[in-house]
Amino acid sequence: MNGPRYVSVIGAGTATERELSLAWSVGRAIAEAGHILVCGGLGGVMEAAAKGSAETGGTSVGILPTDDRTPANPYLTVTVPTGFSHGRNYLVVKAGDGVIAVGGGAGTMSEIGLAMKLGRPIVLLASLDVEALGVTHPKLRRAETATEALELLFGRVQE
Amino acid sequence: MNGPRYVSVIGAGTATERELSLAWSVGRAIAEAGHILVCGGLGGVMEAAAKGSAETGGTSVGILPTDDRTPANPYLTVTVPTGFSHGRNYLVVKAGDGVIAVGGGAGTMSEIGLAMKLGRPIVLLASLDVEALGVTHPKLRRAETATEALELLFGRVQE
Amino acid sequence: MNGPRYVSVIGAGTATERELSLAWSVGRAIAEAGHILVCGGLGGVMEAAAKGSAETGGTSVGILPTDDRTPANPYLTVTVPTGFSHGRNYLVVKAGDGVIAVGGGAGTMSEIGLAMKLGRPIVLLASLDVEALGVTHPKLRRAETATEALELLFGRVQE
Amino acid sequence: MNGPRYVSVIGAGTATERELSLAWSVGRAIAEAGHILVCGGLGGVMEAAAKGSAETGGTSVGILPTDDRTPANPYLTVTVPTGFSHGRNYLVVKAGDGVIAVGGGAGTMSEIGLAMKLGRPIVLLASLDVEALGVTHPKLRRAETATEALELLFGRVQE
Repeated sequence: MNGPRYVSVIGAGTATERELSLAWSVGRAIAEAGHILVCGGLGGVMEAAAKGSAETGGTSVGILPTDDRTPANPYLTVTVPTGFSHGRNYLVVKAGDGVIAVGGGAGTMSEIGLAMKLGRPIVLLASLDVEALGVTHPKLRRAETATEALELLFGRVQE
Repeated sequence: MNGPRYVSVIGAGTATERELSLAWSVGRAIAEAGHILVCGGLGGVMEAAAKGSAETGGTSVGILPTDDRTPANPYLTVTVPTGFSHGRNYLVVKAGDGVIAVGGGAGTMSEIGLAMKLGRPIVLLASLDVEALGVTHPKLRRAETATEALELLFGRVQE
Repeated sequence: MNGPRYVSVIGAGTATERELSLAWSVGRAIAEAGHILVCGGLGGVMEAAAKGSAETGGTSVGILPTDDRTPANPYLTVTVPTGFSHGRNYLVVKAGDGVIAVGGGAGTMSEIGLAMKLGRPIVLLASLDVEALGVTHPKLRRAETATEALELLFGRVQE
Repeated sequence: MNGPRYVSVIGAGTATERELSLAWSVGRAIAEAGHILVCGGLGGVMEAAAKGSAETGGTSVGILPTDDRTPANPYLTVTVPTGFSHGRNYLVVKAGDGVIAVGGGAGTMSEIGLAMKLGRPIVLLASLDVEALGVTHPKLRRAETATEALELLFGRVQE
């Protein structure tokens, strides 16, 4: 691949302090690696990740569920309103070459499932233990820190 | 509501004998109740449910991920090819007034998550124990049989 | 092809008496040929076509732009609410093996354009003269009556 | 509005020299005004507009019909592969606060129709004379130059 890589950061619009801190670190790590951040464009994990990217001079895109840009967080480089409601979850996952999940609820669960179906590398960071459901995937990993998440996502060699 | 109710049956394209038997019974129960069956249109749980509906004189619609109708199972009344790949999972859930999950893997997990976000009643039938992940929803129920699943979905009074 | 053919009838939600009459005749002709009717599910041309199909014992599917089924016309066999607003126009065209346009405005224009891109056979029946724009397509035909439209769509031999 | 405005530039993947020149000028004008360019991400008009934006230090997003980024033109800031084929036309129009059409064929015709349905301001620049079809819209304008197109799109006062 010649161009930058895209990393989708998925997680809920309401999150714990720890999850927000992790998401912010993930956003920073993505920007530092020269990757482009993709997210759902709203608050919580999405906003924290976009903030981390913005503070590090990174580029980010928010794919919004809404008809307009009003609910977008202010840290995004580009926003894409879809009007597709939760149907936009598919586009968030599709637009990433890999996916990092931070925390999460029902929406994040849907995105992990879709990422598995699309064969995307996925790293769980303090996120849903989907393997406990018997849902497994050869490209699924777990990480403890943002740096480790990014390393596991694409592999150290390829960085 | 005046018209018929729509029930989305979600589950994997490859399934165990027990899951296929349950899906077939769910299809029958949906048709017997005068409801319309919605599914993803392919094999496994989707085909078994459509077969049960067809054998009971019911109406069913398969919302396909593919560009054309070739992979549709032969028991569907109507097929809708979308070309949206797994993005069609959202449409499958959206088209149902309620959702019954039978067995399942990553795709089913994505659909349960999307159904939760859409506020749909959901009944799990030998399906993924998503509550073990801490993902809960006030309209989520579990059933042991097809008949019970349908009763729980809309409530006995409303049948 | 083994199964039934699907014909998408496109046209506006408000239409002239002549257009409504033509759409109704198209719906009848589709049902008589044993085809399944696809439309956008709302009023005007969509409703007249669905009515013609229903009166002839045909099967029809309405792919709705809305979040729920409330605005669907009462003649449809199956309704599919998408919540995709005018984005559902693509799905209406995609679901047909061929397209008949009756009358029409901006929405119909968008669907004719999408049908051309998808390579669908298209028949214009008292519809937009898109060739006057210099937009042509090898599978584009014009008809004067519903019967002629259906004959031109798939060819007499194949009926 | 607080953030930047988004302008969708629509037009065909194969275009005349004049159309390419106009699209390039439109891209420059959009970037000079501080707006963000949206397009379908491929060649022809899309590429020329993105090139004009990039040369002027602007930001652009390409919403691709494809499963991956391979066919994207090299001038885009951000690419969003959708896998939705021509269904992505809706997203291209939706993501713009206004639309400028340069030249065009069937795809552009579909996008003009969708933009009308969404109530977007639209400026035709050497593009399809859709009013000749009887399809009109109160926010439809025609321009002769890129500068005029942008002025007409949002109004001089608001620039």
